[in-house]
Amino acid sequence: MKTLSVDLGERSYPIYIGSALLAQPHLLTDHIRGDETLIVSNETVAPLYLEQVQRLLRDAGKRVDTIVLPDGEQFKTLDTVNGIFQTLLEKRHSRKTTLIALGGGVVGDMTGFAAACYQRGVNFIQIPTTLLAQVDSSVGGKTGVNHPLGKNMIGAFYQPRAVLADVGFLKTLPDREYSAGVAEVIKYGLISDPAFYEWLDGNLSSLMAKEREAVIYAVEMSCLNKARIVSADEREAGKRAILNLGHTFGHAIETAQGYQGLLHGEAVAVGMLLAAELSHRMGYLNESEVAGLRDLLRRARLPVAVPAEMTPDLFMHHMALDKKVSEGVVRLILLKSIGSAFVSADYDKGLLSETLVAACTRPA
Amino acid sequence: MKTLSVDLGERSYPIYIGSALLAQPHLLTDHIRGDETLIVSNETVAPLYLEQVQRLLRDAGKRVDTIVLPDGEQFKTLDTVNGIFQTLLEKRHSRKTTLIALGGGVVGDMTGFAAACYQRGVNFIQIPTTLLAQVDSSVGGKTGVNHPLGKNMIGAFYQPRAVLADVGFLKTLPDREYSAGVAEVIKYGLISDPAFYEWLDGNLSSLMAKEREAVIYAVEMSCLNKARIVSADEREAGKRAILNLGHTFGHAIETAQGYQGLLHGEAVAVGMLLAAELSHRMGYLNESEVAGLRDLLRRARLPVAVPAEMTPDLFMHHMALDKKVSEGVVRLILLKSIGSAFVSADYDKGLLSETLVAACTRPA
Repeated sequence: MKTLSVDLGERSYPIYIGSALLAQPHLLTDHIRGDETLIVSNETVAPLYLEQVQRLLRDAGKRVDTIVLPDGEQFKTLDTVNGIFQTLLEKRHSRKTTLIALGGGVVGDMTGFAAACYQRGVNFIQIPTTLLAQVDSSVGGKTGVNHPLGKNMIGAFYQPRAVLADVGFLKTLPDREYSAGVAEVIKYGLISDPAFYEWLDGNLSSLMAKEREAVIYAVEMSCLNKARIVSADEREAGKRAILNLGHTFGHAIETAQGYQGLLHGEAVAVGMLLAAELSHRMGYLNESEVAGLRDLLRRARLPVAVPAEMTPDLFMHHMALDKKVSEGVVRLILLKSIGSAFVSADYDKGLLSETLVAACTRPA
Repeated sequence: MKTLSVDLGERSYPIYIGSALLAQPHLLTDHIRGDETLIVSNETVAPLYLEQVQRLLRDAGKRVDTIVLPDGEQFKTLDTVNGIFQTLLEKRHSRKTTLIALGGGVVGDMTGFAAACYQRGVNFIQIPTTLLAQVDSSVGGKTGVNHPLGKNMIGAFYQPRAVLADVGFLKTLPDREYSAGVAEVIKYGLISDPAFYEWLDGNLSSLMAKEREAVIYAVEMSCLNKARIVSADEREAGKRAILNLGHTFGHAIETAQGYQGLLHGEAVAVGMLLAAELSHRMGYLNESEVAGLRDLLRRARLPVAVPAEMTPDLFMHHMALDKKVSEGVVRLILLKSIGSAFVSADYDKGLLSETLVAACTRPA
């Protein structure tokens, strides 16, 4: 087992990465101060792992309540979070309760937001069960829900007390979702770690075969990169924005599709390629680097083509409402080189337009 | 004009107290960093003061959007806050927007919570138009909404950038609401400022006549006491809880009445008297001090009797769900003496019961 620390002063917390972590109950129970707990899970994950977590907590003398949510990004709403409040109040949970998110990013985002708001803030712990959640959404304290008019528009910065990233959960993860997680893994290499990008290029087949050591290394390097970036900029004042590589384009696709088409990681994969293509047109990346990224995404069984229904105008419309907008200017994350991203507000609008036109007209 | 500073490190902010503050536009505009603003007001306050604030902002070159909410504690819900999100998104407000609460405590609590959650946090400014909001809810960073199962159960600690407490607004405040505000003013004397309590006892008629200097002094002393307590304990870990004197009893009344009976300040007045009576039974206050408080509340035209529908059992039921519960123990705020409150978890349950029985059977 590896232990990483996200260094945020009094809000610092550990990330445990390994397999069979629940065989070490103290990793969970050390971070529960009272005896009240609420496990938040979903209909897909609960049948597989809920009982194990419930038993562990009961054996430790905790009172265990449970809420099982429907599965899917379309349920990441204020209404669903209100259901968590309802359960907490019906079961009379106090300020000393601990919420435990057992599921993917959607469960984690909503549980974290519920914890941030219930009685103005209670503790929570993340047990991410998808690769995406392990490498991305359980690290960094972004919590929240979608609004029909925009993704992740309502939320809070709120840190968990601990994260248990157990790669054993990934055995039951559908291949498509696993690939979507690999997209975010590749992102860390692209934005801040050229050596890790190189490792991914050389070891992708092991990672795709879910070979234990390869997966643990990929999760560790991803969390390490993210933790380093988040520690430097907890509330996204500046540098942290590079974590959004591919996300402005990706969110536009997800919003246009009403969150019902590409998975988040798949949309990010397409978005990263668009960012790389724009970076190339602006003279930062060379053609073979863009081609190499396209090939790597393909080997990770990720889409590299823009969905047929997208047009340059649809992109521009949905990107203007994106949170990366500051005072009316759409800021984009671009690549200076493989392993080095930067935030840009003064990119060439004509080249952005060319990139979108080319991507939207290219045969899939 | 007086300026108090709430000292919370990088979240510190000024409270301006005086009259005709809007004649000094910079008090407001100095705290708006971008050019986007959303004024949140209600149907009662908007016809009186909205245009003045809109004009001030437009004259300063700001873009001004407005949302006017229905008036009343029964509308302090997640649904209403979602309406604020809807407006912000429809009008495409970015992270640099500033929300301006123009109204009483309900408007302030919801605007603050919307600001805490919109895009994970944007700026907000309070312009409280009731006495209660000026002395209580606009100082201290507690924001949030009610849930059918409990008052203020959903929210965030989130600080405004500035508070403009203009006593001129109080001229149009209905007498009953003014008295409800005086209840909280009396509270500050009771919990932490014996000299101020004595001043109130001697100057209550001036305060009730809304004499300008008396009102400004009362608001100033109230904010000063609250700011001092909040600075020492921003997130209510300990000492801050004394601000809840009378609130555990008061919330029980409000919840039992479905927030449709006594005003918040009126319920707190009854609750403070219950706390004083229990403190007397426990040997802290003497009988004449309790009688003096009852007289002071009466002179402030506040209720001193428990509503007829309340029973000791109803009190106990609703108090058990109150946020002041820690690990199943109902903590109460009691008075060691006039001007000195403390948090107690080991008060005599029998004396609490006697106090409630006596209060619920006493003729009104």
